[in-house]
Amino acid sequence: MGANHSAESSALEALAKLRGAPCPAFSPGEVWLVGAGPGDPGLLTLDALAAILQADVILYDALVNSTLLDRAREDAEKVFVGKRGGQPSTSQETINELLLKSAARGKRVLRLKSGDPFLFARGGEEMLALAAAGIPCRVIPGITSGLAALACAAIPATLRKVNQAVVLATGHAADEQEASNWVEFAKRGVPIVFYMGLRNLQSILTKLIDGGIPATLPAAVIASATLPEQDIVVSTLSDLPAEASAAHLHGPAVVVVGEIVRVRSDLLKLASDLQNRAAAGITPELLCVDC
Amino acid sequence: MGANHSAESSALEALAKLRGAPCPAFSPGEVWLVGAGPGDPGLLTLDALAAILQADVILYDALVNSTLLDRAREDAEKVFVGKRGGQPSTSQETINELLLKSAARGKRVLRLKSGDPFLFARGGEEMLALAAAGIPCRVIPGITSGLAALACAAIPATLRKVNQAVVLATGHAADEQEASNWVEFAKRGVPIVFYMGLRNLQSILTKLIDGGIPATLPAAVIASATLPEQDIVVSTLSDLPAEASAAHLHGPAVVVVGEIVRVRSDLLKLASDLQNRAAAGITPELLCVDC
Repeated sequence: MGANHSAESSALEALAKLRGAPCPAFSPGEVWLVGAGPGDPGLLTLDALAAILQADVILYDALVNSTLLDRAREDAEKVFVGKRGGQPSTSQETINELLLKSAARGKRVLRLKSGDPFLFARGGEEMLALAAAGIPCRVIPGITSGLAALACAAIPATLRKVNQAVVLATGHAADEQEASNWVEFAKRGVPIVFYMGLRNLQSILTKLIDGGIPATLPAAVIASATLPEQDIVVSTLSDLPAEASAAHLHGPAVVVVGEIVRVRSDLLKLASDLQNRAAAGITPELLCVDC
Repeated sequence: MGANHSAESSALEALAKLRGAPCPAFSPGEVWLVGAGPGDPGLLTLDALAAILQADVILYDALVNSTLLDRAREDAEKVFVGKRGGQPSTSQETINELLLKSAARGKRVLRLKSGDPFLFARGGEEMLALAAAGIPCRVIPGITSGLAALACAAIPATLRKVNQAVVLATGHAADEQEASNWVEFAKRGVPIVFYMGLRNLQSILTKLIDGGIPATLPAAVIASATLPEQDIVVSTLSDLPAEASAAHLHGPAVVVVGEIVRVRSDLLKLASDLQNRAAAGITPELLCVDC
């Protein structure tokens, strides 16, 4: 116990030195709602790492990269509260209760979510439950997977003279009202980034085409963004479902539709031209070496 | 020089130990387009810090927190290429040229932008210019200020049963086409987060009201989000301009309109109820102690 605490405080000191200021102090009885980012541990923030190093209890979701939990104290309780294929997921009520009870026991409670805690992640609901119970709560934003996926795919979220807005949407419930919204966004030239878009991919794209959006509009899927198994398929509204299916994508996926997707093709074309000219052996992989 | 390089490598080693894996290696002749996040140094990612520690040349924008530059090597060239009140800003052509020339000199070139490099930040344009010249380029996403501002204001970007999408827009050019888009988003119950929204605040909100959006729709300004001088004003479409003006807000500001803004008021109400009941001395500040 003593050894663990001293390892924790030495890691915190190293982190504080790197950031040039003390890390925020996690007090007993507080709950921190923290975004772990899209998956790549390098996309964790310094404050999220400070939270992991200090927490007594960590309630984490399915998409949180498990290597992040290795940074926690050895004696920290790590509680999986996510959805796992086939199994019923932990209910929001149960999660709220766990948060409240752990805080009431005087623990430093870390609620670790993939991406950003306030975007398609129920962070708002949890914050309100904590507030109603008088539990002090801190929210630490994380890099949201939709925007990280675009960065990894070399697709700018906004591009001058192309778009002055971008929509972040969930593809989870492709109902008529949502579909009507998507058609309207696309008609106005506003790109849409769909979270959880793979399961309903065919339905989402068909609804856009049925709504009058040209079948040739560029569209892409980015699966397992920022992770080593990341896979990207670029196509059009009409052809993306078949191409995504042929690529056997797995893992969480972001779907993006709009003219901005064309930038990736332009980039690969530039890379290929350079390669043809044998210009310094530049390859598409080198041109955009990351994420 | 030797001493600097050894300080750099010891900081990199400390960072690698904290993340549990080696940091990505910045090779001479590469350009990295990196998001520095919204301002709070704690919201920097581990990879962005690794980039700052290794860079030979750093081209940075006006909104990049200057304390981040203190993490750079002593012998790193730091070049300001942002806009500063009243002064003409560095042109995009000049920035592209600086990037290309520094890379051609075999430098490790860090292009450090506030927020995310691909969202209202010209990262796409710079990536294409680098690709055309055959310069290897890496993109590292950052926490975008719009979403960070919501987290700091305790306003969830999405809330179950309230919204299944959110729009990120620039309030910079409030032209008729953009205004028509905003009205359509708001009519459909989709909240809008405006970047650079303060200068055109009156114009943006008037256009929404003229388009038929109820003047009572909740709206907020978050100025200097995540920084010590952060200031938040919550009001309605009709009253926000006067209240924001009375608050003498300064610094970069995010404007958000939509039902999600109501959550902040609900939260403050819960806090105030608890306070009236003298429940453990909970104050609104404690309820959401951060950012």
